[in-house]
Amino acid sequence: MTKKRLKLGIFGFGCVGTGLYKVLEEAGSVEANIKKICIKHADKPRPINKKYFTTDKEELLLDPEINVIVELIDDAKAAFEIVSKAMKNGKAVVSANKKMIAERLPELLKLEQTYKVPFLYEASVCASIPIIRNLEEYYDNDLLTSVSGIFNGSTNFILTKMINDHVSYPVVLKEAQEKGFAESDPTLDVEGIDPKYKLCIILFHAFGLITQPKDIFNFGISRISDFDLNFAQQRNYAIKLIAKCNKNGNEITGFCAPTFIEKEDPLAHVKYEYNGVVLESAFSENQLMIGKGAGDKPTGSAVLSDISALTYDYKYENKKYKHVDKNLKLVNNGTYKVYVRYNDTFSNFEDFSSIEEKFTSPYGNYFIGSINLETLSQSQWIKNKNINIIFIS
Amino acid sequence: MTKKRLKLGIFGFGCVGTGLYKVLEEAGSVEANIKKICIKHADKPRPINKKYFTTDKEELLLDPEINVIVELIDDAKAAFEIVSKAMKNGKAVVSANKKMIAERLPELLKLEQTYKVPFLYEASVCASIPIIRNLEEYYDNDLLTSVSGIFNGSTNFILTKMINDHVSYPVVLKEAQEKGFAESDPTLDVEGIDPKYKLCIILFHAFGLITQPKDIFNFGISRISDFDLNFAQQRNYAIKLIAKCNKNGNEITGFCAPTFIEKEDPLAHVKYEYNGVVLESAFSENQLMIGKGAGDKPTGSAVLSDISALTYDYKYENKKYKHVDKNLKLVNNGTYKVYVRYNDTFSNFEDFSSIEEKFTSPYGNYFIGSINLETLSQSQWIKNKNINIIFIS
Repeated sequence: MTKKRLKLGIFGFGCVGTGLYKVLEEAGSVEANIKKICIKHADKPRPINKKYFTTDKEELLLDPEINVIVELIDDAKAAFEIVSKAMKNGKAVVSANKKMIAERLPELLKLEQTYKVPFLYEASVCASIPIIRNLEEYYDNDLLTSVSGIFNGSTNFILTKMINDHVSYPVVLKEAQEKGFAESDPTLDVEGIDPKYKLCIILFHAFGLITQPKDIFNFGISRISDFDLNFAQQRNYAIKLIAKCNKNGNEITGFCAPTFIEKEDPLAHVKYEYNGVVLESAFSENQLMIGKGAGDKPTGSAVLSDISALTYDYKYENKKYKHVDKNLKLVNNGTYKVYVRYNDTFSNFEDFSSIEEKFTSPYGNYFIGSINLETLSQSQWIKNKNINIIFIS
Repeated sequence: MTKKRLKLGIFGFGCVGTGLYKVLEEAGSVEANIKKICIKHADKPRPINKKYFTTDKEELLLDPEINVIVELIDDAKAAFEIVSKAMKNGKAVVSANKKMIAERLPELLKLEQTYKVPFLYEASVCASIPIIRNLEEYYDNDLLTSVSGIFNGSTNFILTKMINDHVSYPVVLKEAQEKGFAESDPTLDVEGIDPKYKLCIILFHAFGLITQPKDIFNFGISRISDFDLNFAQQRNYAIKLIAKCNKNGNEITGFCAPTFIEKEDPLAHVKYEYNGVVLESAFSENQLMIGKGAGDKPTGSAVLSDISALTYDYKYENKKYKHVDKNLKLVNNGTYKVYVRYNDTFSNFEDFSSIEEKFTSPYGNYFIGSINLETLSQSQWIKNKNINIIFIS
């Protein structure tokens, strides 16, 4: 096995980019050097020598010496342009852009195939947890039935603070933003869209299914009130933003929603910025992987692991996709038990196949009922900001 | 990538062997068939067709059609003979025999190299948790500093029962034996020898170190008394049989011992027959993998995963070992905080560098002190059955 010497061209030098720089410096053992880093703002002060930086992306994409492009920018559209141009120019690509990968997987696969270059993206899902690599390499024979977990560190941090310190959502969000922990526009995280991107990537590597994020139901944590927190406390529940997919024959269901889980559930112990992934299979039963889901070094180390794998010519084989049952499809026909809290009145009980509990009071009202995922996702009442839903696991 | 069609010759048809048979039947997707199974007792009733069975090992080892030998017997010496003969005959080998692998790794590596055949053994460490594969494939660039965890399902089952149900050691052990869960001679498990074998295998794949189990300190759970359990309860500790190795420069320390851990420690939530592995590294920080560490199907699925990997010509690259610092060595010079419970008197306080707490009473006595691992392992008083020690993490 001969090891390749890699020359890296990096796009973006934010949190993950600087993390990668740090781990690359400290690790030493990986045969890779940064040649050039393309950034947007030339004038920003940088922690390393100015000679590395350029604002001209062609300087990286057209440099024949650079054999790996590491794409670490936010903008999914610009990222796709960079990544596709890099592949067309015969360069291997490492990316952490979950939005781009989730939304444009068919095009990316085609590019990879046409130009015969590896395209790796372990850092795009749950940062330091090597979930893609494990789905690719280890769980290929196992009869996987479900992958679920906490795929977003920011919201898990917020929820942990809310439950542990009894602080309400707007206060924790403000604290997280002040600490630079949550984005100034936190929508992708708190509305459960970011974990949905990751779920799409997992669906591909776990089951070989290609799907669009828009086709998967998501609900966020921004409506969680003190009333909901009290309910959780009374029942001894934790609240986690859970993304989950199940395979049943040739039907896949998936969703991302806040969920009440028992304190005994292993995911209840996954706190703050940690992520956790549960793999359920016919033989090995439940497996759980826990690790930091955010932060410069944990994410940088996942990128570094991809770079290291490239020195051994590693690429995803996409075995599940290659052998996928052509009838495999995403359906939303599962029935879920849901807690619905409303402030004034609720008049859509007919959407529910059964109602288990009803509670009304001057402080707030809730009911617990079972509902089909399709009915839930098509409902109008769910758009009402005075209504909150939390799944019950 | 062309997939090989495999013909399997299996040695042993106990718990893991039948587990493998079941998962192979159910999985379907793995291109492997059992051709012959070598067993010791021809007359035992078997759940599958008699034509598969033989008591003549040559029938498997000399059959040119059989290209993979799966070794699943208990006896480490006989296992080594089978495995070495199989490799000499050009057959790939899958094994679950941790004792054999831990004790005879240099010879096995030489055989693998000389006869150019893959030798895989994921099932030998923590059953369903793909720890070897992850150490081999994913953590090769990361600056790993420590691997630790619960590597033995039987003792974790016993400890969980003792703590949760307040049942004393002899009662739980008897229950576990009656259920066929613990061996009739449980020494390897309860004295912490089995997890030490696993630790040796981990040391090789994590750090490239070859060492002998006898050089690693171990202490078991058989002396844990009601007094110790009460102490744990008062301090809100869990007790786990922890195996751990640390790397510090070119020095490695390792041990296996019962350990008090905080209820907040993620390993405290790893209960019953589950195993848990904690990987500590400079960049990704703590990572935790949890899965079933015992049982026919979880272990069978790990064996199946190795078989599946062979269809793609997978082999361990042993990268850490190939690039190992020649000065890397096992030392026992760490200092550990230890709880020592004694029934009558204790007169070896001079072995401890410091004493933190002392307690004497008519019901029992203990002290907490710090001791060098080498001093502890060389001490005579530790052999006294009326003395119990538990590490404090």
